[in-house]
Parts: sequence; structure tokens; C-alpha cells
Amino acid sequence: MNVAILGVGLIGGSIGLAARARAGAQVSGYDTSAEVLAAALERGAIDEASSDVASAVRSAEAVFVATPVGALASSARAALENAGPSCVVSDVGSTKRVLADLAGDERFVGGHPMAGAEGAGVGQAREDMFDGATWYLTPASGTSGVLYERLHRLLVSLGAQPAAVDAEAHDRVMACVSHLPHVLANALVREAESMVDDDEDVRAVFAAGASGPSFRDATRVAGANSAIWTDIYMANRAALIARIDAIAARLADARELLAAGEPGALRDWNERARAEKDQLRAAEGAAEPTRELRVVVPNRPGVIAEIALALGRAGVNIADLALSPSDDNRQGVVALWVRGEAQLARAQELITALDFPVVRA
Amino acid sequence: MNVAILGVGLIGGSIGLAARARAGAQVSGYDTSAEVLAAALERGAIDEASSDVASAVRSAEAVFVATPVGALASSARAALENAGPSCVVSDVGSTKRVLADLAGDERFVGGHPMAGAEGAGVGQAREDMFDGATWYLTPASGTSGVLYERLHRLLVSLGAQPAAVDAEAHDRVMACVSHLPHVLANALVREAESMVDDDEDVRAVFAAGASGPSFRDATRVAGANSAIWTDIYMANRAALIARIDAIAARLADARELLAAGEPGALRDWNERARAEKDQLRAAEGAAEPTRELRVVVPNRPGVIAEIALALGRAGVNIADLALSPSDDNRQGVVALWVRGEAQLARAQELITALDFPVVRA
Repeated sequence: MNVAILGVGLIGGSIGLAARARAGAQVSGYDTSAEVLAAALERGAIDEASSDVASAVRSAEAVFVATPVGALASSARAALENAGPSCVVSDVGSTKRVLADLAGDERFVGGHPMAGAEGAGVGQAREDMFDGATWYLTPASGTSGVLYERLHRLLVSLGAQPAAVDAEAHDRVMACVSHLPHVLANALVREAESMVDDDEDVRAVFAAGASGPSFRDATRVAGANSAIWTDIYMANRAALIARIDAIAARLADARELLAAGEPGALRDWNERARAEKDQLRAAEGAAEPTRELRVVVPNRPGVIAEIALALGRAGVNIADLALSPSDDNRQGVVALWVRGEAQLARAQELITALDFPVVRA
Repeated sequence: MNVAILGVGLIGGSIGLAARARAGAQVSGYDTSAEVLAAALERGAIDEASSDVASAVRSAEAVFVATPVGALASSARAALENAGPSCVVSDVGSTKRVLADLAGDERFVGGHPMAGAEGAGVGQAREDMFDGATWYLTPASGTSGVLYERLHRLLVSLGAQPAAVDAEAHDRVMACVSHLPHVLANALVREAESMVDDDEDVRAVFAAGASGPSFRDATRVAGANSAIWTDIYMANRAALIARIDAIAARLADARELLAAGEPGALRDWNERARAEKDQLRAAEGAAEPTRELRVVVPNRPGVIAEIALALGRAGVNIADLALSPSDDNRQGVVALWVRGEAQLARAQELITALDFPVVRA
């Protein structure tokens, strides 16, 4: 398979390394920095350095746009303009709504791998970067089933676990689990530092080594890479503002409990947090053996996206899928693999409700 | 030395193990639970199990009150009532103002070791629990210098680094670096769990494994041990409420920046958080070789506390100290060890300003 990568840094470079080593892909790369591009070639992350987007994507069957978040939309647009009619184009940005207007192109599928590293740049790229990592995909109603399948299978071969989700829900969740913790960490270091600045007695407590593990954990991501994070904050502003408002209301609740000074109520509040933490951890689910089912579908755009989203919404994750068009090309069979008996039964129920015939393998 | 420990759980048990092994102490223990007391004896954390506070502290030269925070004040009072006139009494509670009314007794010095473990109970106790750990002490103006010195030296022999700080500043800092992060973690899991409850698209994103390292770090302490934390929240309510108000104001600032949508301002805000994080880390200082100085002091209560606090306030940490009374018992010499030339010079300056003669060793 011919794969093109636009932006060959940490994530783009890792895609290249994995695609070459694990999917036997021929990888062409493009980067606005000639130096970065040369480093990627040297590192073996790409087979070929292209001098522009058009030549990078010309013969590609899959394109990954891995530029900074702020440049994603324009890079993805350039990729779609220059790629062929049967090339799937995806990206790796941590917010998905910014690319919503590309959803009209049946070749585009938004993506977001939950992987990364402390460092940056192709020097830190690793072939095993995506092993076992969730890779969110946000297919739209017009997404081509054939192209979605190709992308899905390619990601599985890179070691990732693709999961189809709604783009807007994705961004709201990221605002809560990633962007808000960064804002809280920033606010917390500023608060601590201003206390130190204001009072010599406080400074003495800090100088002796006040910060235990809870402060270190809570501030680890404070002041994270400003180039990356300014883009992310800008891209997901609305969802993040909503989350800040929500957490402010929850802090106000906690303040009220403290002011009331009822030990029983504080204990209940803390116990509930413990229960909710356990529920969240459990919601992330354990891996069970994969089970297969086959679905007969009409061969039209959107079918795969429709199934993937229906299952994703119900918490059924597609571990792998394969699409086989019939000879007359009017219908096809989708083979799906999900984890465990319960998910298998649920998947069968959901797909039947969409009026597609299902058989268990 | 005879040491008594009231409450022989994780911290009390670790003090016992370290005091026996490293200070050659004879340790008597008391606990409201006969079972815990037997386990402490079995574990070798105490030499002798006492049936009540009075017999535990009767011949003690140092008493550690290591009961839960909610029971600290009454246990410390019982210890002072039953201990002899030349016995130092300290505690290990994570808030210090609750014991402020004990400061009138020259035998009492509040304490707070920055150590702990995931588990609880004497079964998790370790002799090396305090190795290199900051151990805050909050001497008051009436604290006996001789007794403060005894406690300080005992803590050093346990492996800890004692640091004299102001009790009120201690509690304010703990509200910021420990108690507030717990409140934020609780608020964050509740927010995430309520998002999951409210929306099936959001649930799908979580089910696929949304939470990356920043969410795990930010929620690690959510719902921490309710028995311990209800006491801590109650004990430090006022300082914690002030910190919640302060962080709410900082979140409002961040919200305003996001709403304005100026990338440059967001970048500056993030960069400043990075700089402040670096400053905080630097404020915790690296260890330099110890240097000694000697101070001639009148032999009256409060002198050691006065020096220790003056140095602590200026960020000069006393690594070790020794007090030698003169023959006529009217004055004495305090030997102090601090880290590095700069701290030595600063210590000399500060103590001279207190009108005590200083000689460098």
C-alpha cells in the first residue's frame, strides 16, 4: 500500500515507521521543514521525501495529516485536493470538530490516536507508538465504507485499536479528560507560586519540600508545550469553556460542604467520588477474546460509518473489520470482530435494528 | 531513649520500627484497637504494648501522637497530662492549627512528616519510611529548646529532615499542595462520570478508553481514604475554602482568555505556568554539603524555636542541631548544621540580627 504522511514529527514519524515495518507500506512524506523531512528519511520513517503536498499524495491510497492542530484544516484540504478519488485521507489532531466541514468529502475520516510521548520530533518516533492504543475515528454520514475499512485495517496493522465515535462527543470528552486537566494544572502552579511570592513563612514551607505526590501529579502537565497547546486550546475553546464552567460549579458545591462543616456530608461526597472513579475505570473495559459476525449491506457510502457509529455509541468496539463487495458490486458483506459474547449479542441486536441481515460466524 | 507512640498504624508503626532499629530506642505503644496493638508488637514496631495512655507515656522521653487527625487533639492532651515534665510530645497530623492551643505547653512541638504510602495499617509500616523525607515541626514561642533539640535529633536519626515552620503557613500550604488537589480530583471524576451518564455518544468515547495520562494523574487521588480525608477536610476547612476561592478566580481568568480567543495571550498564560512550575521545583532546592555554626544563647524557653523559625522563614533549613548547656545552666551553645555556603552566610546574618553571638565552626 502507498501511504503519504504530511508532517513527519513524533506522530507522523511513528506512523511511517509502523506502516513500513508492519504493513509493508511504501511511505512518502512531506514536511514544511526540509530539515525535519531529511531527518525522517534518515530515521527510516519514510521511503521518499516529497517536495510538496501534491507529489506526496499523488499515488497514495491512504494519507495521514499529522501537522500541528493549527495547520490541520488547511493541510487536510490540500491533501483532499491533490489525492486521487479512491484515497482515504485522515488526520491525527486531538480535536475533531475543526475538520467538520471536510466531512462532505467521502474520502475523509477524522482520526485521533491516544498516543504520544514526553518529547517531540521524529527523533522520538517509535514503530510501537500505537501498540494497544485507542485510535478514535469520526466517520460522517457520507464517508465511503470501502475507504473507512481500508483505514481501519491499516490502523489495526499499526497496532492500534480504532474506535468510531461522534466528533462532537469526542471533543467534549477531550475537553474534560485532557484539556481541562491542563488548565487545572496551570491554575494550580500559578496559585502555589503566588502564595510563595506573597509570604515568607509560606516560602519556608515550600523551601523545605512541601510538594508531595498529589501536587506533583496535579501539576505534571502544567505549562505543557506551548506551540501544541495554544493550538489545542484555540481549537476546542467552546467545549473547554463549558467544562470550566461545570468544574467551577462542582468546586462551589465542595466549598459549600466545607463551609457547612458536616463530616457525614463530606464523607459521602468523598465516597461518591471514589465510586465514580471506579465506574469510570470500569467503563474503560477489559479485553475479551474477539468474536466475529457478518453483515450483508448495500454497497453505498455511509453504511460502514452508520454501523461503526451505532456500535460505538452503544459501547461496542469494533476490534477489526473487513468488507467484501459482491461480484455485481451492488451489495457486500462486512465481517466485524468485537470482544466477548455480550458485545457480540449487542452488536447483532444493533445491526439488526438497522435492518441489515446478520449472521454470527 | 524511651519513646512512646499513641496510635500504631502506618505512620506510628514506621516511627516505632525506625526508632528501635536506628535510635536504639525502647518503644512503648498504645492503640484504641487491641488487635492493632498486638499486630504492632508482632511486627516489631514496639517493644511493649501498653493498656492505656498513662502507662505508655509514663517513662517516655519522647511521645509521638499518631492517631487519626480527628482524635489528635484529645490524644495529644492526654499525652501531655500523663507525660513527665521533661518529655517532648509531638504529633504527625497533616494540619497543625488544630493543635494551636497546646502550644502553651513548653513540652509540645507540632509535627508533620511528608511520608506515607498507598496502604494503611501497621502491616505496611517500614523502617525506611522517613528516609530523606521532610518532617515539618511547628515550635511555638514557649517551646523548650532542650526538648525541641531532642525531638529534632531523634527525627534525624529516623532518617528524616526536620524543618521548623510557622503552623498557620504550613496549613495554608498543605491546603494548596495537598488538600486542594484532592478536591479537584474529586470534582473532576464527578464531572467526567456525569458526562458519561448523560450522553451515549460520550459514553462510547469513554468506553473506547479516553483517559490518557493527564486524566489519570489528575484523578489518582480522587476518593482517597474517606476516614482519613474527612478528618483532614474538617481540620483544615478555613484554609481550604480560601484556596478553592483562589483557584476558582484563576479558572475564571483562564475562561476569559479562552473566550477572548487570542492565541498570543493563551500562549503567554501557558508559558507563565511553565516558568512558575520551574520556579516551584527550584524552590525545593538541591542538597549541598552541610556546614556548621555555633550560637551562644541564654538558656530560656523559646530560644531554639526563635532561631529555627527565623531560619526556616528565610528558607534556611537546619539539617541538624545540638544544644549544650553551660555548667551554670544560665546559657548554652547551639550547634547548627545547614547546607552550603550561601545558607551558612544567611544563617549567620539572621542569628546575629537576633542578637546572639555566632561563630562559624
